[in-house]
Amino acid sequence: MEPAKPNSTIDDLFNHPERFLPSVSVKCAIFSFQAGELLVLLLKPSNTSRWALPGGLIYNDEDIDDAVKRVLYDSTLLNDLFFKPFDAFGKVNRQGNQSLQAHHEDSVADLMTKRYITIGYYALVEFQKVISMNNDISLEYSWYRLNEIPDLICDHNQIIEKALQTLHYHIHYQPICYNLLPVKFPLRDLQVIYETILGRHFDRANFQRTMLATNTLERQDKHYSGKSHRAPFLYSFRKNEYFTSLKEAMNRVR
Amino acid sequence: MEPAKPNSTIDDLFNHPERFLPSVSVKCAIFSFQAGELLVLLLKPSNTSRWALPGGLIYNDEDIDDAVKRVLYDSTLLNDLFFKPFDAFGKVNRQGNQSLQAHHEDSVADLMTKRYITIGYYALVEFQKVISMNNDISLEYSWYRLNEIPDLICDHNQIIEKALQTLHYHIHYQPICYNLLPVKFPLRDLQVIYETILGRHFDRANFQRTMLATNTLERQDKHYSGKSHRAPFLYSFRKNEYFTSLKEAMNRVR
Repeated sequence: MEPAKPNSTIDDLFNHPERFLPSVSVKCAIFSFQAGELLVLLLKPSNTSRWALPGGLIYNDEDIDDAVKRVLYDSTLLNDLFFKPFDAFGKVNRQGNQSLQAHHEDSVADLMTKRYITIGYYALVEFQKVISMNNDISLEYSWYRLNEIPDLICDHNQIIEKALQTLHYHIHYQPICYNLLPVKFPLRDLQVIYETILGRHFDRANFQRTMLATNTLERQDKHYSGKSHRAPFLYSFRKNEYFTSLKEAMNRVR
Repeated sequence: MEPAKPNSTIDDLFNHPERFLPSVSVKCAIFSFQAGELLVLLLKPSNTSRWALPGGLIYNDEDIDDAVKRVLYDSTLLNDLFFKPFDAFGKVNRQGNQSLQAHHEDSVADLMTKRYITIGYYALVEFQKVISMNNDISLEYSWYRLNEIPDLICDHNQIIEKALQTLHYHIHYQPICYNLLPVKFPLRDLQVIYETILGRHFDRANFQRTMLATNTLERQDKHYSGKSHRAPFLYSFRKNEYFTSLKEAMNRVR
């Protein structure tokens, strides 16, 4: 099928619910990294008071991967994001979208509050590439720091928590850092990503020595901000070596 | 809800399809280990010619975890198996259960061949604990060696392949070996599990030294089979240490 335009999905949801598979949905925890912070993208559906994860239903004639790509495009206006499923959420009483129910007419509230099994995905996006967070589907988007995530609808807080747990071990096997960082970055940013996802502090010298020893990084020019005499060097991933290194990590026995 | 008896699920499927959520199902790649081989449990639905993974639909009033437990109980007559979701399978044209269609009346064939999004789970079972593979739901069950898996219905071969890829990195973080081995086992069996899942050979002395150095194993009595003067020692996991070790592995940076 043709990729759906942002607006058409919402139109179909309200006017042609029969075009979607019933009872199953996808939700995406979209992570990004900016100014030394890991961020997650939240949206506020129109006329509601609480934030939520981007997500949606799956068209009858749409591969589930294409549904996820569509949701990611709707939220970031980007294609080709790195995404992975990590868990399924399917408790009987998990919906509880009372805030939605209160603001919509009955038929839509019914659609939005019926029982779904939700497949949770995480996605990684380089912050500089995000074109817009306010597209034309009348929803409010905003990036939130991990420690400032509000009380989300349904079990979306739990979905983010599980996504972070998954990143915790995927960081050794999946190209997480590659997908969160721009082409050139200071080593400090790489360290912050590891520290945030693994939830621990690394000695700066040790971390840099360990990372440089992997031979996956290439030193680039210095980053002169004009503010400091100690401008840090920037680095880039040796792409092939980085991906080979992740592959080899999978083969290493403890 | 009460745990379903094996027979009742099949009855409901044929006579009360409205009791299940439409469009979403679970499939389980159930692995076990016996005689130096990793095995996977397959079933052959009655009146069909091709093998399949155990799985099923989710009752309207059933948590998805309970649905998975029910499927695992139906297939192994065991409760409390270790299981994890690992991927979602949702291509538009993935069903193709022609062999089912050919053998059932139209309404059942329709139910069984409509489009589902399937959430793939792997489960691990200690072979000695399996009570029966032939329960009373009129299905034929059999364990297959990984290199002898036949051509399965739908995309079930791909589901097994993805499950194995997941075990490949989960072996460092999840209690896979603990759930596949009996209380006492020869180190050789532990090595075979690592070799099979990681797809590589380890030097026997190196592997044993590395494993014993983790301090997660406790030497037990020798295993006298009556056939050899070189009876191997048996080992058991120091449960607390093994689980702590897996937890710590998650915190180790490369």
